[in-house]
Amino acid sequence: MSTHPMEKIFYPQSIAVVGASGNPDAQGYDLFTSLPNHGYRGAIYPVNPKYLELLGIKVYPSLKEVPGSIDYVICATPASEVLNVLRDCSQKRVKTVCLYTARFSETGRPEAAKHEQEILKQAKKWGIRLIGPNCRGIYNPQQRISCYDCLPKETGSAGLIAQTGGGTIEIIELASRRGVYFSKAVCYGNALDYNECDFLEYFSQDPKTKIILMYIEGVRDGKRFFKTLRQTASTKPVIILKGGRGKSGARATASHTASLAGSMKTWETAVSQAGAISAQNFDEVADLAVSFHFLPPIRGRRVGIAGGGGGGHAVITADQCEEAGLDVIPLPTEMREELKSKGLAVWDWIGNPADMSIRGKTDFNSVNMLRMMARNQNFDFLIVSIVLTGLISEEKTALKFIGDLKGYMEVKKESSKPLLAVVPDMSLSMDDHDKWKWKLLCEVRTKLMATNIPWYPTIERTARAARKLIDYYQKR
Amino acid sequence: MSTHPMEKIFYPQSIAVVGASGNPDAQGYDLFTSLPNHGYRGAIYPVNPKYLELLGIKVYPSLKEVPGSIDYVICATPASEVLNVLRDCSQKRVKTVCLYTARFSETGRPEAAKHEQEILKQAKKWGIRLIGPNCRGIYNPQQRISCYDCLPKETGSAGLIAQTGGGTIEIIELASRRGVYFSKAVCYGNALDYNECDFLEYFSQDPKTKIILMYIEGVRDGKRFFKTLRQTASTKPVIILKGGRGKSGARATASHTASLAGSMKTWETAVSQAGAISAQNFDEVADLAVSFHFLPPIRGRRVGIAGGGGGGHAVITADQCEEAGLDVIPLPTEMREELKSKGLAVWDWIGNPADMSIRGKTDFNSVNMLRMMARNQNFDFLIVSIVLTGLISEEKTALKFIGDLKGYMEVKKESSKPLLAVVPDMSLSMDDHDKWKWKLLCEVRTKLMATNIPWYPTIERTARAARKLIDYYQKR
Repeated sequence: MSTHPMEKIFYPQSIAVVGASGNPDAQGYDLFTSLPNHGYRGAIYPVNPKYLELLGIKVYPSLKEVPGSIDYVICATPASEVLNVLRDCSQKRVKTVCLYTARFSETGRPEAAKHEQEILKQAKKWGIRLIGPNCRGIYNPQQRISCYDCLPKETGSAGLIAQTGGGTIEIIELASRRGVYFSKAVCYGNALDYNECDFLEYFSQDPKTKIILMYIEGVRDGKRFFKTLRQTASTKPVIILKGGRGKSGARATASHTASLAGSMKTWETAVSQAGAISAQNFDEVADLAVSFHFLPPIRGRRVGIAGGGGGGHAVITADQCEEAGLDVIPLPTEMREELKSKGLAVWDWIGNPADMSIRGKTDFNSVNMLRMMARNQNFDFLIVSIVLTGLISEEKTALKFIGDLKGYMEVKKESSKPLLAVVPDMSLSMDDHDKWKWKLLCEVRTKLMATNIPWYPTIERTARAARKLIDYYQKR
Repeated sequence: MSTHPMEKIFYPQSIAVVGASGNPDAQGYDLFTSLPNHGYRGAIYPVNPKYLELLGIKVYPSLKEVPGSIDYVICATPASEVLNVLRDCSQKRVKTVCLYTARFSETGRPEAAKHEQEILKQAKKWGIRLIGPNCRGIYNPQQRISCYDCLPKETGSAGLIAQTGGGTIEIIELASRRGVYFSKAVCYGNALDYNECDFLEYFSQDPKTKIILMYIEGVRDGKRFFKTLRQTASTKPVIILKGGRGKSGARATASHTASLAGSMKTWETAVSQAGAISAQNFDEVADLAVSFHFLPPIRGRRVGIAGGGGGGHAVITADQCEEAGLDVIPLPTEMREELKSKGLAVWDWIGNPADMSIRGKTDFNSVNMLRMMARNQNFDFLIVSIVLTGLISEEKTALKFIGDLKGYMEVKKESSKPLLAVVPDMSLSMDDHDKWKWKLLCEVRTKLMATNIPWYPTIERTARAARKLIDYYQKR
């Protein structure tokens, strides 16, 4: 455990949910039920005069009636009730309140913005620090605390600081489906009191957090933010998705978290200078998270590509890697010589990417090619492209794929060279849903993750993520 | 039926497959079996001295033994046999031969290139026109002719001209999975004789082909190509994916179809000036095919976006639309007034994209929003974003999604405004495969297609495709 003053916020011993509800359609339902459902072992105090008991847990009519001390209060009341809740918190000496309550400055209404400022003023007076308003607060699977029931119970080493609840879910779902779980996350909404810098400082020194992901619509204090970012990025990869990049997006951020989105060019430059990495959308946040999680540093741009479909696929793969700034080098001479000495008929014809459809009748396959590339010092890293198009026979295909996959996994174990895999999505309709091909791809993905090989749904996204890693490590 | 001289090639009454094989691992297996498997009703003549019968069809030891006339010969023999096969073809007065046989100029070996030229010379002498070498030839589901067993049996109105076999499968699979089927396709390899211009001219006047898709690595005669392209693009949308755009891709095209990839900038400009549309990868070819297939012309960039997740999702959606060159206009005043008059509490707060997570307790939903946008003349077209993150309850979610979906489909029927849908892929591993959420998305996709609403897996791809359609229609 770190001794950072914010540690207590992420490891509360008791939590009260004001406005906890038994009605699944009410806002206070998921916020409360997530705690017992995730197995939170501290004291849970639901507060709502309408109930005596929820999920077998005693409900209190008000905060003041709660018998023990309360480390963390989640407030899901209407905006008009917030000041009363804070007053009760001050009596109970609560130090941290997460205001799920919304309809403040983000509405654009002057009286709502004024009300928000009044809340901040009173909270300060009463010695209470606020997360939010308009947010979900903390997720800490180690402590079995979740702000959404749907989030995974598994713990990991990624940390997420997100201004939005939906984005929190989306990023955690996308990353965890690809094998990256979280040390903790915070969804902080309008950042009236605690803001992105406070959380970044905490995550920066948290030994359980190895990679930091951020979704930011606007920062409250640019100077402090970039200073904190520079310090953090010097010790851990920080991946930032900026919302509100264009004029319509900026309009949307204003009505979402009352953030002022600034000039994108200035922003991108400052992020890059601070040593952090920009992502363009939620998918790319996940791509970068899995890349940093599974891969050792990639030291150069020279990529070797094995697997893949036929020649056209190899051509487009090469184009897209080059367009992402990778160097798809010609097959090294010593590899050609080795292929010749092994008697491969296409020794002078096969290239990088290796189009295995031209190999003819030989046992030489994409696993052998990948292994040779792994041993050759001209390649900085490797991509294996797993394509499942145009195949009919289930049994034969499955055998070949699982056989190849086993080979790729062996290469990964033999070599320290970074290895990335492309496993395409297949956008399916009902007709396709139960097809064996699809299950085969799912199996491939599961086995890749178990061998610490990250996978990406397109070569474009693979190449883009690799390039960003290379830039990151070259700057350091 | 058109009277174009090439019509006979696409509608042969009899087909011989030289090198037809009964061994599933041999090259001549799929080429032959695809014909009876697809139900080709013309005469099929497998030729191979090693067999007497294959799939109940009589096999001939040589072409000369075939009793009837032969319209189309597929040659799957080794390269060394090709001249003998052509000599037999000349005796049988065959007019068209598809050379599946490869290992010619694409190997980079001077003697192979010389051999290729000798084949062309002899074919000319014998009055035989060639498709290929190094290709699969024609696919015409109307005639139940397929060059791969895996291609769909359904007929449609897209035409595909592709230099690569794997690309042919990939494009047809990606498009047909999203509701676009084919009038015909041709895979033409090294373009030794018939080339992209010949096929483009034919597809241009083919009444069954409404949209033309092309995968090209290099053109044989640039002047003729762009002249033909201009003429064709003035009557039908032509979507072109160019392979070999960078130096590594160009190296790969040389060893794939012996094509010389030229300068990309010149290429892109010429394609655009000819009125055709460039795609960057196989996925984008499919995106554009479904767009042209399902959508009426989009006349302007002003987009209205309904559905979606929470605020962060709306923000990133707006950013990505704007980055693709769309105009995400603010919600029109008259819509705000109508929302106010309907008593919606968030009338002055809700925007475009419409973040429905802020609506609170009201019956007003994303279907109502979409309907209002469809009726408002300020929107040129609409996008509905269908997001399935963070949900736990199967029954409730399914009810809501199917309900909303029904609403979107009604709006589509009521309005002539172009409507596009985003239905995300969920890259799954084994744990997720059987989840109900996934099946729900499959169901959504199937129903959207049945209502002629095209779907795309990301907002980025949706916006990009829309923008290319707008540019296409504005040029005309």
